[in-house]
Amino acid sequence: MVTRLRVTVFPKAGVLDPQGKAIERALAGQGFSGVREVRVGKVMLVDVEETDPARAKATGEEMARRLLANTVIESFTVEIA
Amino acid sequence: MVTRLRVTVFPKAGVLDPQGKAIERALAGQGFSGVREVRVGKVMLVDVEETDPARAKATGEEMARRLLANTVIESFTVEIA
Repeated sequence: MVTRLRVTVFPKAGVLDPQGKAIERALAGQGFSGVREVRVGKVMLVDVEETDPARAKATGEEMARRLLANTVIESFTVEIA
Repeated sequence: MVTRLRVTVFPKAGVLDPQGKAIERALAGQGFSGVREVRVGKVMLVDVEETDPARAKATGEEMARRLLANTVIESFTVEIA
């Protein structure tokens, strides 16, 4: 059986987020006036062959640490989707 | 007051997701053997000056339709974060 993991990766607080800044400006340019801040991250849906949710989540966290996130500048969360 | 919206954008089912395929291969190469499928999307946290959750969400949906998603090939969801 397959468990679907949702791995979400964001730049850490204090790390520059140029994509977010670009979207802020683009939204303002489109007439959306009340936008304070935009932060942009990645989200990955990973289907793993594992029935135990705790083990699936632990695998997802190892994937994030080793490959999906750059933990120097990014933080991640892993949830069962 | 500020409401934080979470806008999530994924390629529609059936649309090729080359980032997801690259991550599948990279995970297999790192020894993660039980990975079935990976889909990659974007997630945007948008802080808007709006106290009413329903109106904030409606604004987020308009932002997604007009700017944040390409609705020809992507689907989106907007939640209060």
